[in-house]
Amino acid sequence: MKKISLIGSTGSIGTQTLEVVAAHPDKFEVKALAARQSLDLLVEQALKFRPEMVAILDESLLPQLEQRLSGTGIEALGGMAGVIEAARISSANWLVSSLVGMAGLQPSMAALQSGKDIALANKETLVVAGQLMMEEARQRKLQVLPIDSEHSALFQCFQGQPMDRVERIIITASGGPFRKLPKEELPKLTSAQALKHPTWTMGAKITIDSASLMNKGFEVLEAHHLFGLSLEQVDVWVHPQSIVHSLVEFVDGSVLAQLGPPDMRTPISYALSYPDRWPPIWSRLELKHMKELTFEEPRWDDFPCLKLAFECGKKGGSWCAVLNAANEVAVEQFLQNRILFGDLARVIESTLEAHDPISRPTLEQLIEVDVWAREFASRAAAGTLR
Amino acid sequence: MKKISLIGSTGSIGTQTLEVVAAHPDKFEVKALAARQSLDLLVEQALKFRPEMVAILDESLLPQLEQRLSGTGIEALGGMAGVIEAARISSANWLVSSLVGMAGLQPSMAALQSGKDIALANKETLVVAGQLMMEEARQRKLQVLPIDSEHSALFQCFQGQPMDRVERIIITASGGPFRKLPKEELPKLTSAQALKHPTWTMGAKITIDSASLMNKGFEVLEAHHLFGLSLEQVDVWVHPQSIVHSLVEFVDGSVLAQLGPPDMRTPISYALSYPDRWPPIWSRLELKHMKELTFEEPRWDDFPCLKLAFECGKKGGSWCAVLNAANEVAVEQFLQNRILFGDLARVIESTLEAHDPISRPTLEQLIEVDVWAREFASRAAAGTLR
Repeated sequence: MKKISLIGSTGSIGTQTLEVVAAHPDKFEVKALAARQSLDLLVEQALKFRPEMVAILDESLLPQLEQRLSGTGIEALGGMAGVIEAARISSANWLVSSLVGMAGLQPSMAALQSGKDIALANKETLVVAGQLMMEEARQRKLQVLPIDSEHSALFQCFQGQPMDRVERIIITASGGPFRKLPKEELPKLTSAQALKHPTWTMGAKITIDSASLMNKGFEVLEAHHLFGLSLEQVDVWVHPQSIVHSLVEFVDGSVLAQLGPPDMRTPISYALSYPDRWPPIWSRLELKHMKELTFEEPRWDDFPCLKLAFECGKKGGSWCAVLNAANEVAVEQFLQNRILFGDLARVIESTLEAHDPISRPTLEQLIEVDVWAREFASRAAAGTLR
Repeated sequence: MKKISLIGSTGSIGTQTLEVVAAHPDKFEVKALAARQSLDLLVEQALKFRPEMVAILDESLLPQLEQRLSGTGIEALGGMAGVIEAARISSANWLVSSLVGMAGLQPSMAALQSGKDIALANKETLVVAGQLMMEEARQRKLQVLPIDSEHSALFQCFQGQPMDRVERIIITASGGPFRKLPKEELPKLTSAQALKHPTWTMGAKITIDSASLMNKGFEVLEAHHLFGLSLEQVDVWVHPQSIVHSLVEFVDGSVLAQLGPPDMRTPISYALSYPDRWPPIWSRLELKHMKELTFEEPRWDDFPCLKLAFECGKKGGSWCAVLNAANEVAVEQFLQNRILFGDLARVIESTLEAHDPISRPTLEQLIEVDVWAREFASRAAAGTLR
């Protein structure tokens, strides 16, 4: 029986995680749920899955949450402290970490520190604090299992294989909606144009990151930490059909890959059932998906965010915290139509240039760096206001 | 240190096996070599790898072999008895079984009975006697590792995965040179037209089997025995680029695949290094191989040999021995231009129709069935002489 705390239960990954959990009532107990602000859905989930504790990050919603759960015996908490409580609840042995953004970082760390294994969908946990997190997990002999489709693919390909015989990994990228646009059209594109992702349905932030290839850059950094591989061992291939989710090349030249139609329930299911696998087949790979699979080199120069991620990853320390924070601000500004597509990398680059790096930052220092970078990036973005 | 006996050392698989062995002088000792009739190459290999014993199947060549190895201290043997001696040589702990045709069957069984693990390239071992062989291996707790690229692919995908969670396997097929020909052109095709295989360079017999899809049928039967899967769990997809060597679908919908440019040294290397992997990279998968991968349904009705294999496999017992023998005769006749492409299935079908089945045949009975089927098929082929 897996006893799980699910942080970010009302988002795309959270709701699909609960679908997988609901398919196996004999295998899971939900001990805690937490969400940012989707009160109605959180209450609905709480009444269905009957956790011991529910937390809402937006503390102003706590009184309503308390009221709607009164008489159920379910404890209601609010704010980051409440979400952290939910993440470290003693009755759970697993955290599913799918709260989006920096808000996912502290609950993930708290879960490790309280001895829980983690199924991880929150990117910032590894992008910003990958070194700290993986050290913590290693010392406590805890597992950090990926939920992201690319990392799940890699993790599946590594099973039963000698990790010291990995030559390189190849992370696939859809290439986003602007994959084929001429270079000169890219700078002036707007968020409305970026929000039409060809193959996956995702939140707005990650869809923009997918268009700029920063999402792929983050995935490169996550894989680097999660699997203990150098960045020289990580490659990226554009694969517009999003059927091959990633590949692993071994020292004998053999390549393993994981495939499937785009459906997050498959990697979620694997993270929750690992090392076993459980039915049902959430999405079936059929010949119609395989009619034509193509692969190509990313346009490194035209989509500079991917290169920025590699550069920050190689420098390590606090650099990726700046990369992440500046990108988050830039994407916000882009979504509010205050900057254009070409400004994304420019805002990030100028923030990186102003950064005073810390080589082995603590979690507190990373959070401080994050705050500084957000302020700086906001000013940088304002400088490019229309 | 792996101490190997290599049966079929002068063929395509045999010579490539020795390439892999030569790349790791610290990891292998060659204890015995055997070949059908390529005397010069066998002698050359013997002088290079210095086995204790060398055998030649064509007994008429034994005096020459003895003469050319005199003074080397290498024992020379001839005939099937000699090849079996080489396969069961007590100083070896592995047999690499790559002698083509029925001749590979008895040496493979002898190796198991003398306690050796097997790296298997000989198809007949599993097609004809899969049940007996795998029972023998199971009882003696010996490994039978595949060398065929498709079975190696499947075997690699199974590593670290729960075998009782396999939903199905998908064996890929190049589709052969006649993949796109209209149905009405198929019956009159000649062996010269079949011998141009699009992606793999192989012997004549297997190239014809590849054109008729019987090769794929045999691989289906081999996979069925090797991995203990029902024939309902085996599917075949045509993949003309021969880059994805096969796929495994699990009960959660996730699919793993193994990829690589067509190069037999990669699966040979894996069988020899398993569960480890050793450099070098014999062939590297590059973006140029991945520009466009396509998959399609086999033309079941136009290439009936594939269906015949499934049918014989489901019936079990002695049926696949008949299938194999009749096919071998039909292909011989086809290569000698005595029958046409459309006659292949007809010769096999008429032999199957005349067969009096044995449900649990012994090895001796399978060999008797093989002899009967060859005689019958020869007569059936003669009936369709031009």
